[in-house]
Amino acid sequence: MVQSELHVAPMHRICKKAGADRVSEAAAKKLAEALEEIGIKIAKEAIDYAMHAGRKTVKAEDIEIAVRKVMGR
Amino acid sequence: MVQSELHVAPMHRICKKAGADRVSEAAAKKLAEALEEIGIKIAKEAIDYAMHAGRKTVKAEDIEIAVRKVMGR
Repeated sequence: MVQSELHVAPMHRICKKAGADRVSEAAAKKLAEALEEIGIKIAKEAIDYAMHAGRKTVKAEDIEIAVRKVMGR
Repeated sequence: MVQSELHVAPMHRICKKAGADRVSEAAAKKLAEALEEIGIKIAKEAIDYAMHAGRKTVKAEDIEIAVRKVMGR
């Protein structure tokens, strides 16, 4: 588990957007942890793509391709 | 694209944790959008699990199983 960079309040809002009536505090924390882990995974892939392109700066195009890879689409 | 609930600053921190030196602002925004979309997807699955268990409240266990399903693990 990683120490979360993401706050609980936006997790509650994301769940509301998805249609949830009620969301426990533990569920919101779990979602924050999961999204941070997924974010780190995406960022790691994006860094690889940036390096492969001879760049030190991660760009939006690196994130895009990394998301597709991590999410398997 | 969804209007993002996630701020750009934590995205930069997530990228640093992943080992990035430099991350463009557009890349951080792209990551925020992607994580929100993934979060909504996870939350929707979690709501289905909660309903299936006869609950109106989404609990941590629903998020856990939803993450596994969405991430294909």
